[in-house]
Amino acid sequence: MFIMSNENRYNAIIRIHCPDKEGIIASVTNFIKKYSGNVVALDQHVDISNNHFFMRVEWEMESFQLPFDEIEKQFQNEIADSFQMHWTLNSTKQHPKMALFVSRLSHCIYDLLARYQAKELEVEIPVIISNHLELKPIAEQFGIEFHHFHITKENKEDQEEKELILLKEKGVDFVVLARYMQIISPKFIESYPNNIINIHHSFLPAFAGAKPYHAAYERGVKIIGATSHYVTENLDAGPIIDQDIIRISHNDSIKSLVQKGKDIEKIVLSRAVKAHVNRKTLVYKNRTVIFN
Amino acid sequence: MFIMSNENRYNAIIRIHCPDKEGIIASVTNFIKKYSGNVVALDQHVDISNNHFFMRVEWEMESFQLPFDEIEKQFQNEIADSFQMHWTLNSTKQHPKMALFVSRLSHCIYDLLARYQAKELEVEIPVIISNHLELKPIAEQFGIEFHHFHITKENKEDQEEKELILLKEKGVDFVVLARYMQIISPKFIESYPNNIINIHHSFLPAFAGAKPYHAAYERGVKIIGATSHYVTENLDAGPIIDQDIIRISHNDSIKSLVQKGKDIEKIVLSRAVKAHVNRKTLVYKNRTVIFN
Amino acid sequence: MFIMSNENRYNAIIRIHCPDKEGIIASVTNFIKKYSGNVVALDQHVDISNNHFFMRVEWEMESFQLPFDEIEKQFQNEIADSFQMHWTLNSTKQHPKMALFVSRLSHCIYDLLARYQAKELEVEIPVIISNHLELKPIAEQFGIEFHHFHITKENKEDQEEKELILLKEKGVDFVVLARYMQIISPKFIESYPNNIINIHHSFLPAFAGAKPYHAAYERGVKIIGATSHYVTENLDAGPIIDQDIIRISHNDSIKSLVQKGKDIEKIVLSRAVKAHVNRKTLVYKNRTVIFN
Amino acid sequence: MFIMSNENRYNAIIRIHCPDKEGIIASVTNFIKKYSGNVVALDQHVDISNNHFFMRVEWEMESFQLPFDEIEKQFQNEIADSFQMHWTLNSTKQHPKMALFVSRLSHCIYDLLARYQAKELEVEIPVIISNHLELKPIAEQFGIEFHHFHITKENKEDQEEKELILLKEKGVDFVVLARYMQIISPKFIESYPNNIINIHHSFLPAFAGAKPYHAAYERGVKIIGATSHYVTENLDAGPIIDQDIIRISHNDSIKSLVQKGKDIEKIVLSRAVKAHVNRKTLVYKNRTVIFN
Repeated sequence: MFIMSNENRYNAIIRIHCPDKEGIIASVTNFIKKYSGNVVALDQHVDISNNHFFMRVEWEMESFQLPFDEIEKQFQNEIADSFQMHWTLNSTKQHPKMALFVSRLSHCIYDLLARYQAKELEVEIPVIISNHLELKPIAEQFGIEFHHFHITKENKEDQEEKELILLKEKGVDFVVLARYMQIISPKFIESYPNNIINIHHSFLPAFAGAKPYHAAYERGVKIIGATSHYVTENLDAGPIIDQDIIRISHNDSIKSLVQKGKDIEKIVLSRAVKAHVNRKTLVYKNRTVIFN
Repeated sequence: MFIMSNENRYNAIIRIHCPDKEGIIASVTNFIKKYSGNVVALDQHVDISNNHFFMRVEWEMESFQLPFDEIEKQFQNEIADSFQMHWTLNSTKQHPKMALFVSRLSHCIYDLLARYQAKELEVEIPVIISNHLELKPIAEQFGIEFHHFHITKENKEDQEEKELILLKEKGVDFVVLARYMQIISPKFIESYPNNIINIHHSFLPAFAGAKPYHAAYERGVKIIGATSHYVTENLDAGPIIDQDIIRISHNDSIKSLVQKGKDIEKIVLSRAVKAHVNRKTLVYKNRTVIFN
Repeated sequence: MFIMSNENRYNAIIRIHCPDKEGIIASVTNFIKKYSGNVVALDQHVDISNNHFFMRVEWEMESFQLPFDEIEKQFQNEIADSFQMHWTLNSTKQHPKMALFVSRLSHCIYDLLARYQAKELEVEIPVIISNHLELKPIAEQFGIEFHHFHITKENKEDQEEKELILLKEKGVDFVVLARYMQIISPKFIESYPNNIINIHHSFLPAFAGAKPYHAAYERGVKIIGATSHYVTENLDAGPIIDQDIIRISHNDSIKSLVQKGKDIEKIVLSRAVKAHVNRKTLVYKNRTVIFN
Repeated sequence: MFIMSNENRYNAIIRIHCPDKEGIIASVTNFIKKYSGNVVALDQHVDISNNHFFMRVEWEMESFQLPFDEIEKQFQNEIADSFQMHWTLNSTKQHPKMALFVSRLSHCIYDLLARYQAKELEVEIPVIISNHLELKPIAEQFGIEFHHFHITKENKEDQEEKELILLKEKGVDFVVLARYMQIISPKFIESYPNNIINIHHSFLPAFAGAKPYHAAYERGVKIIGATSHYVTENLDAGPIIDQDIIRISHNDSIKSLVQKGKDIEKIVLSRAVKAHVNRKTLVYKNRTVIFN
């Protein structure tokens, strides 16, 4: 008996944005058809107020008559140039490398690592970084390298530089701040543009900044939320990837808000990470398109 | 002063389903491009388990080089035949004619008529039909013809026949059962296949049949729901268009379930009607595709 | 045959707040027991950070050995004085009188009037007031007096004075701003403290002020909301009664946000009005307790 | 320096149900007041259709003039007898012992163990039991005893007997079936009445039994759910503790339903376990009262 190699059973994904114009979809799908690719997912969006076009298309490489390595050049010449496209190509074989930044709270990291271990998240996790030691045992539980970078006002610049060197060594593609209680410097952010995902424990833009549950309690809201977003230089103001909420009441103390909030924080962060990993996100003018 | 005619400022909509195959999207979008149409919405779906393809595309007619009346023939010859497509063509100028069937409860009819009056629903409502007289004043409030068909076991067949004649006279395209408490006969259903929308006051398939709130109370559920669906011969088993839920507790009596349920019934029904009116629904094998 | 009079079949409701102390619940329930009252609902809450106690108790008057008119004096002497209670007494026979303020949008007023007509809301509505004429036909549909007060910067003070005189004439107990697009003056607010309910079309405190849907679109949120609250001098900052949300996506234009938002605005406003009418709300330090 | 012992800083909890009658709340709160207890939570409910009363009251023991050991006798004599109460007494010092039953899926067990390790769940977990070996490493990660009981049709009775002996040895108070894919025998259930919590991956009563996600997919629902309930002899028909749902669409394959469902399964199960552990649940006539 002969077992077919799975090596060619993967998909290519292209994400595009460009000025809207007649015939973009036809051109892109013709390109794939021409090389005998079979489209398995296509989602497009037109931002009418900006007259801008967005598209994600995924197709099977098994039957595709163009080697993956040559897609970039051909697509650029045949299609992208004429439409002034910004675009990226990925393959589902490439599992992106994710670094986790944590402080003392364990709910988000557990949720992500449990999914990782259950092979629900198609990433590699070469390193977990923290400014505290409390969660080191969890990294060990899952057999992942843990690095401790103690951060003070004075050493922050140095420490971030060392962190960046470590991330580079490990080939990290994107960073997840899983309730990491430090503000990241602009320099760090520039090293990973639209590749740092944060979870903020409020339905942004409400209660940006510190202690959102205390602020929510004071304001007397009847709903609390959590927001995952890409980190930009403006604190808690980056492009939103996902949000969710939970209903509360006057019966809830700040302590119970914190507790209930954890359940949505971890789910919203994991959903955002999954969308990012599956190349379903696209950032444009500080907003996201989240493809199907 | 000269007012520009808006006559050509409308869109064409095509909904398609056919066996999945390479190149469908390219072919359809090429067709539109060829006649200089500008796509404003495109959504497609592949049902992988059935290897079946679904698509809805909407484009502006203003610049389109083919008169609306000729689209049908051209599209059939150029595209549809070769892919064995089932497809329908609509124009946003054609406002479908909707008949409302009601009994005694007013929340759904008020919700629909308020939207209709606010021009939120692009329909015409030539007639409201009821087996009771209680809601006649509401029809009068909105200036809509009201017809009373008293229904008994004995006269049901006759009455439905008269109703069908009336619907035909009025040119009714689809029927909405807005808490109409009668079971529709197969013959009636066959006259409007996938064009009768019902609201059932439970999250189907739970609590199909009579008195779902009583059944929900007895079972002690913590969530109640409402389901809008196309009516088929199998009671409460037709293709689901939309569902929603509301959280309840042991504090809720049957009376308060009924009350809370009304809020989701009317919203879910109105959302379903809107999806139908905007030609965003497609039925296949007793399930719906709801396009963006 | 003899039909029992229903005159005595109503309930009394007491809402209390006072510093927390041992024995409050026992004292209040003993009071009701002493006069043979049967408690049908009791809900209490302790705000631990303020050491403050809240309670709502409702009991049947049919068997109660103290006439309703004497409850106030007896309860004050026997119970309220010793606990320094702030408290109010109501009877379910008294249907509060509600004035509706509207501008041009009809969804909230229709939702409230449809519930009113279906006897779902136990209020009287002696008057609808608007700064525009568009919704006058709806008031007429429901047979309710409509008064038009055109508002300009110059005449605002005068017009509000006239409105207050009208409200007094009609015996209005509370005011509902059903998408009334005017800011109410402090003087007006002082005439109805904790008795003016507004619906704001965002999940406050996010997007307070004008054009919240535009702001939500700009920010790129994935969830929009609506908030009902008591009006205070600080714009959109009064005690929140209820909130709800709906999920949106990058596909939604501002127009579709407005559309989807209407569905939650009307439901959230109606729920708040119902809670107020059923005497289930209590304001303390700019937050609400919403009793079961 | 002198550190106060915390030994007396705990609460007593009484849960009651009995026929409804005047004066129950007054009697119970008088009892607590008499011994100088400070009530920190009180929630009551009247099931009007059954004329049955339910109550949970929690008070601080620090100032209480009756030792915990004597409460049972005194309360029975002074209060419970005259009202024919069914009631239970607990102390927040007693952390109940929970056994986890699992098969191959890890999401629920991870969610529970992560909460346990973060001290969010006030339980002890002396043992994890499985019919498979896959999750043994997770038990080891958290340092919890793991026992493997391979189950076949033939050995089921014997194996369950051994399991019961083990649970007894470990002093287990209640059992959580965290996606344990076996049906528990009536004999086993009788050993833990209202003390076995299951998570079913549908919004019951819809899709009871095997493969609910497949059934949900076939039926074309637009919402899927998860239900935690106490296990009774009737499969998936026991008293419901909590439910939650997630919105899906035609785009979701069975695989993605399974994936999305996991997120609500684990949250719903953990919420149910927390309610049980905090003695907030009460079962009556196959339904639950969930106290605040």
